Amino acid sequence: MNKIKVGIIGAGGYGGCGAIELLLGHPQAEIRALIDKQDVGKPISELYPHLKGFCDMTILDPSDPNRPDDFDVVFFATPDGVGQKEARSWLDKGVKVIDYSGDFRFNDALTYKGYAARIGKSQDHASPDLLPRSSYGLAELHRRDIARSDLVGNPGCFAVSCILGLAPALKAGLIEPESIICDAKTGVSGAGKTPSPTFHYPARYDAMNAYKVSGHQHVYEIERECSLVASREIRVTFTPHVIPLCRGILSTIYGRLRSGENARSAEEAYRSFYKEERFVRVFGPGKVLTTTDVRGSNFCNLSVNVDERTGRLVVISMIDNLVKGQAGSAVQNMNILFGIEETSGLLRPGQYP
Amino acid sequence: MNKIKVGIIGAGGYGGCGAIELLLGHPQAEIRALIDKQDVGKPISELYPHLKGFCDMTILDPSDPNRPDDFDVVFFATPDGVGQKEARSWLDKGVKVIDYSGDFRFNDALTYKGYAARIGKSQDHASPDLLPRSSYGLAELHRRDIARSDLVGNPGCFAVSCILGLAPALKAGLIEPESIICDAKTGVSGAGKTPSPTFHYPARYDAMNAYKVSGHQHVYEIERECSLVASREIRVTFTPHVIPLCRGILSTIYGRLRSGENARSAEEAYRSFYKEERFVRVFGPGKVLTTTDVRGSNFCNLSVNVDERTGRLVVISMIDNLVKGQAGSAVQNMNILFGIEETSGLLRPGQYP
Amino acid sequence: MNKIKVGIIGAGGYGGCGAIELLLGHPQAEIRALIDKQDVGKPISELYPHLKGFCDMTILDPSDPNRPDDFDVVFFATPDGVGQKEARSWLDKGVKVIDYSGDFRFNDALTYKGYAARIGKSQDHASPDLLPRSSYGLAELHRRDIARSDLVGNPGCFAVSCILGLAPALKAGLIEPESIICDAKTGVSGAGKTPSPTFHYPARYDAMNAYKVSGHQHVYEIERECSLVASREIRVTFTPHVIPLCRGILSTIYGRLRSGENARSAEEAYRSFYKEERFVRVFGPGKVLTTTDVRGSNFCNLSVNVDERTGRLVVISMIDNLVKGQAGSAVQNMNILFGIEETSGLLRPGQYP
Amino acid sequence: MNKIKVGIIGAGGYGGCGAIELLLGHPQAEIRALIDKQDVGKPISELYPHLKGFCDMTILDPSDPNRPDDFDVVFFATPDGVGQKEARSWLDKGVKVIDYSGDFRFNDALTYKGYAARIGKSQDHASPDLLPRSSYGLAELHRRDIARSDLVGNPGCFAVSCILGLAPALKAGLIEPESIICDAKTGVSGAGKTPSPTFHYPARYDAMNAYKVSGHQHVYEIERECSLVASREIRVTFTPHVIPLCRGILSTIYGRLRSGENARSAEEAYRSFYKEERFVRVFGPGKVLTTTDVRGSNFCNLSVNVDERTGRLVVISMIDNLVKGQAGSAVQNMNILFGIEETSGLLRPGQYP
Repeated sequence: MNKIKVGIIGAGGYGGCGAIELLLGHPQAEIRALIDKQDVGKPISELYPHLKGFCDMTILDPSDPNRPDDFDVVFFATPDGVGQKEARSWLDKGVKVIDYSGDFRFNDALTYKGYAARIGKSQDHASPDLLPRSSYGLAELHRRDIARSDLVGNPGCFAVSCILGLAPALKAGLIEPESIICDAKTGVSGAGKTPSPTFHYPARYDAMNAYKVSGHQHVYEIERECSLVASREIRVTFTPHVIPLCRGILSTIYGRLRSGENARSAEEAYRSFYKEERFVRVFGPGKVLTTTDVRGSNFCNLSVNVDERTGRLVVISMIDNLVKGQAGSAVQNMNILFGIEETSGLLRPGQYP
Repeated sequence: MNKIKVGIIGAGGYGGCGAIELLLGHPQAEIRALIDKQDVGKPISELYPHLKGFCDMTILDPSDPNRPDDFDVVFFATPDGVGQKEARSWLDKGVKVIDYSGDFRFNDALTYKGYAARIGKSQDHASPDLLPRSSYGLAELHRRDIARSDLVGNPGCFAVSCILGLAPALKAGLIEPESIICDAKTGVSGAGKTPSPTFHYPARYDAMNAYKVSGHQHVYEIERECSLVASREIRVTFTPHVIPLCRGILSTIYGRLRSGENARSAEEAYRSFYKEERFVRVFGPGKVLTTTDVRGSNFCNLSVNVDERTGRLVVISMIDNLVKGQAGSAVQNMNILFGIEETSGLLRPGQYP
Repeated sequence: MNKIKVGIIGAGGYGGCGAIELLLGHPQAEIRALIDKQDVGKPISELYPHLKGFCDMTILDPSDPNRPDDFDVVFFATPDGVGQKEARSWLDKGVKVIDYSGDFRFNDALTYKGYAARIGKSQDHASPDLLPRSSYGLAELHRRDIARSDLVGNPGCFAVSCILGLAPALKAGLIEPESIICDAKTGVSGAGKTPSPTFHYPARYDAMNAYKVSGHQHVYEIERECSLVASREIRVTFTPHVIPLCRGILSTIYGRLRSGENARSAEEAYRSFYKEERFVRVFGPGKVLTTTDVRGSNFCNLSVNVDERTGRLVVISMIDNLVKGQAGSAVQNMNILFGIEETSGLLRPGQYP
Repeated sequence: MNKIKVGIIGAGGYGGCGAIELLLGHPQAEIRALIDKQDVGKPISELYPHLKGFCDMTILDPSDPNRPDDFDVVFFATPDGVGQKEARSWLDKGVKVIDYSGDFRFNDALTYKGYAARIGKSQDHASPDLLPRSSYGLAELHRRDIARSDLVGNPGCFAVSCILGLAPALKAGLIEPESIICDAKTGVSGAGKTPSPTFHYPARYDAMNAYKVSGHQHVYEIERECSLVASREIRVTFTPHVIPLCRGILSTIYGRLRSGENARSAEEAYRSFYKEERFVRVFGPGKVLTTTDVRGSNFCNLSVNVDERTGRLVVISMIDNLVKGQAGSAVQNMNILFGIEETSGLLRPGQYP
């Protein structure tokens, strides 16, 4: 088989870099072009010197008439608002699209509008007719949809950790659906490459904070997916925190156990739900899991606990926000889109310490 | 007035060092002796070179017959199990005692036993008769008891952040008492000075984890204090996490709002509860608070939020675990014990960045 | 005596914040106004929340006609180029001036021009006539000049560490003057408060680099001071590095020992040179010194070593770049300018860990 | 060809883990056994959970009679003193040996004794007759020797950075041989996995220090290799520093330029020396290089600068201490020992940020 030809739009950000790193080691894909509005004309290895000798392709302007466009798939490793304007032209040429942002995570314009309001965007979706066509790129729950689709909305990093941590409980009816709280902690790389006062080293190295308390945009995806799994409308309380480390999301998820459920049934529900999944590892109580266990890899580690005294399920869900929470899921979705082995290019353990 | 003469037992640990730093700047107290079983004979400034020229006192052996014992108060900056054996001899001499550990946080031996079991100690309390005599050293809730006492159990660092974050809500009846969840994140200094694999720099610099899920010993203090304030038995779910920073605890506290309560009534309840408190600052929603705001100082910052969509109160409570969570509270308690200005020696803003 | 009335221009930066922290604890000085072009109208405690309740003064615009100007001294905690334009108007009113930047570190316009070229400024000095009037604010070497002056050029942070580390060796003729190499490592706070790609947390947390190899502007001060002490023209090789920590400069200084000199004579020369100095501590070989020993304090720690095998003096010089390297030296200079105890407000040990 | 069968002794340390990570991705090698005195009976993925599913082999006791010994090569990822006792038994069976420690870096017992004294070992080498048989595992300088050998002393991490940074200058006669100073900064992972007070997170996160000033054991290798290249006896001043980051060594190397040499000739000498080398990248002045450029990869990046004002060559040499400074060099040496492509299994760019 010919290699899958990939174009990366927004190649200069952390999300683009993550895709490049993974695709360089992917046996069935090749990067055909790196596209970005910034740093046009520079080799990518000038921005990311660790790539020197591995990928020295020049960054091309999106509007450059000479840039290649014979892609099988494009990654929009771009912020909200770009993909919804530009995806159509690629789809029309038969190129599949994987978008990192929230642009294609929802199937209707109204839900999108609620999402967009939370990130300060008041405009309507630029391509509402594409929304029903998109699939939600969380492979563990939607791989059949993804396989039939040509437009994937890659999930939000927090959402990946929370949804994977909640789905088995909701599927098995372990918990009261109105009792869900997700307390999420993320490393700083999730905020991307652009400097800002709050991620300036001296301001961040010894500082943690909550932000967007009860107001983070990822809550919509989490609720939509939870509602789908539980077959009823679910709302969750979601609080994100920023922590002074680079890579890693740890979400601590709470729900009140339904009567009759216990630690054993909970662990069994999780093990059963994920028994075929290569990228989700389930652990029972008693084992301390750390975000470094998944750093640099596409895995989600889940620790399933029950607080007997208060009758609550407590699930700790961990991912690398730049891999399973972003570029890794994108590659996993690409593999599904093209019908190749879903784990291709993704079976890497990361590096320690 | 003569200065309060202080002896510090366990002077060589972080908790001892913190007391020294505060007492050096205290206008009405003086350090009379530094006592520890380790590093006997060394000047404290060899262990903590930043103290050189400020405090060069030699560490004395607890059993050294020549060491001074003309103290007005001793700080047991020691692990669980020491104070309960040694406090009596000081009390008998009329010396007041402030113990950092859990040894004197409970007034009855049975509750203590539950606490002790959680930290792997199966023995009964060594001085159960002293327990009713002790006061719980959280000044904001118990300053009258402390003032009447001569034996203070300094509160646990997590407990300080959670109790201060919960008391107003329970007092005002804002939340359903059975709905409380405390998700706490601590910096590494809370674990003390002794190296261990999990706090080795390469293992920790980019790693976060939950631990003792539903099983941390501080839950007893939190529940006892919550129950007292609410005048009913309360159980909470409590999950501690370790985060790669040095100083700071951030506890995110969740409770279901009672009907009729809202963001305004919640903020008002907190402002009212703490309106006379110098060391607690209340903030409404919308302001991002960071642990560095309280780093190096004796303050607790509280952000009071309501998630309207799910009807939950979300309080973010922040302290410096080594100050308000340990040595600062100890000094505050000392001030109360001796009837001097409660803030004496404690009005320092910390340092930034 | 009335308190010294201080105005701080550039109050919103780290250098301004450092001055505020020190002056709040200074028994003989008071802050009269905080002035900055940015964040005008905001309380300083909104920028630096740890100051809340300690200093809530509003930031005033430099050109605000209603702002106080009855200062005894102004601190220009501003970047290069500001003080040289604005100092005169204050001096003319009899207000003394301490400038943090390079604007008044040199006594002649030509040397300044060389300095300015290194920081990318091609313009001539705006007030060359003020240059001969200025004193170089390194108290340990120039306190008599400072005392007679009303305009102080506060030294560069790297320069403080290198000059204090070299002066005794040059004074005593320990080393060959043409053999000097200064290898300096700084924490990130030295770069100030403005975010940039190179100090973005994810780019910096696990990264070190040299920069301006052989081209850093502080080399001029170092050479001028070395030449003065040695009474001959000296050139040094100086390489700065940025290290992922917040506070601290460690400069490793190398020079070839003159024949007849050895470890004993070297240590003796340093001890003798600094025997009256409160803020310089000299240590012999064998003791490992760490930047945390001086973090948060106005001290410079020096470790004096000789490599017998190669006949070189190796001096390790450590300061907190924001204290002895900036605001602490400024306060020390203020004390000298006003004839009060030089250590006033500065005898603080810092905090650990 | 059959895969090279590798046994790793000391598998549980960082050096063992690094070898496992590399060998898992090596197309021509396979791990046959993991051996360690500690953690016997545990799966390696219990110690290093990121390996779960990739390498779950059980750690075997060195003296376990049932452990496999049909290796082609063993890695002694062990501290000084182990390999010199145990290597012979493997060599006698025809198994090649690569030792990470200083045990086989020297060809004579006397030089070894000097080295050993610096690390506090007073005993003679246990197998002095093996010393002449060993090769020094710095492939860029000794690949022919290594290819002919069956016993490789892997170089010290500091030594790799300094020797690669000095060899071209000495070969080309750019600098005065007696003028060499190496100022080296290392991340904490170089100290290994065992916790200690100085690498405890709270003591290290914001701290840097020099240590073993003029007394580090790696100076012997550096001097030996420099002397070989320069064909004359050379002594260097070497100062190591520990820096609060995990991976990376940056060595700043100074030497006085010989008359007639300049920036152009220096850069040319370096480019020429390394023009065939895959793992050394040479950069001219003006480009800021960062340790993250080589983090996680087997590269050494060199920045070649000349300080025109003082006539000194200033070379910045950067490696990942755990890869090119340890396990990566070991794998590179293995490739040479078995006559396969030297870069096999090593062409990985690392990960960023």
